[in-house]
Amino acid sequence: MHERFLEDLKVGERLESDSYIVTAEAIINFAREFDPQPFHVDLAAAEKSLFQGLAASGWHTASITMRLFVQATNFAEGAIGLGVDELRWPAPVRPGDALRVEVEILELRESRSQPGQGIIRIRNTTRNQRAEIVQTMFASAMVPRRGELTTDH
Amino acid sequence: MHERFLEDLKVGERLESDSYIVTAEAIINFAREFDPQPFHVDLAAAEKSLFQGLAASGWHTASITMRLFVQATNFAEGAIGLGVDELRWPAPVRPGDALRVEVEILELRESRSQPGQGIIRIRNTTRNQRAEIVQTMFASAMVPRRGELTTDH
Repeated sequence: MHERFLEDLKVGERLESDSYIVTAEAIINFAREFDPQPFHVDLAAAEKSLFQGLAASGWHTASITMRLFVQATNFAEGAIGLGVDELRWPAPVRPGDALRVEVEILELRESRSQPGQGIIRIRNTTRNQRAEIVQTMFASAMVPRRGELTTDH
Repeated sequence: MHERFLEDLKVGERLESDSYIVTAEAIINFAREFDPQPFHVDLAAAEKSLFQGLAASGWHTASITMRLFVQATNFAEGAIGLGVDELRWPAPVRPGDALRVEVEILELRESRSQPGQGIIRIRNTTRNQRAEIVQTMFASAMVPRRGELTTDH
């Protein structure tokens, strides 16, 4: 797939990722390592919780979203996260869900501190197979510019 | 360890977690699965990147922070994340770093929608072994109230 640079993007553009299936095993394994709370690691406890069934850790959903963001954007040298705002999980992620991420480009500019780099501001929306939104966030990231290759001199 | 309920906390209180050592292997394994960018999975690419060496994915740091939050707070039935704001990574996490989380209680109230539950607003600060801040965030979470056990009737 074509590698992207700052110059390849336009404000308002939306990039769509592939889908990623979340298994019960993956939900439990992630939670055992990073979010060992009863409703994320134990089926019986999950049934009795506010989730009323097994649900993925929000940090698992966020991590899957990052994977899908990397695949959807494919920046030449990668994107370095600068910060995330308003991270929300409006609906639970369940075993068997197939997640997709939509990346909307909100702002684009050159970096003042890093001459070869640009800054993008995005809105990431993660949806399940029924198009229900399971996560939203705003983020800023440093991404590569084409630099010398496309200058006129 | 004593299980906590909303009633056990005070505004302004700070809870400190144990420490958690991040290995190079863990950084690379997490990144291969969730943030497969050159500077998170390949030592040579990491050296040439803006990170100037291997650095953990910010989502790995956030996930470790969740693990340490769960350990430090130990809510009786767990804490359900409602949202995160101003998630920042002011310094990279390196192989061998030992991370600790400080949880500061900013607000406490009863939930209006869930009678047996409370809502807390916190500031989470994650530091390495040199007390350098590697992550900061604000978060809201639903946590259990003692309910009937401590009422007077």
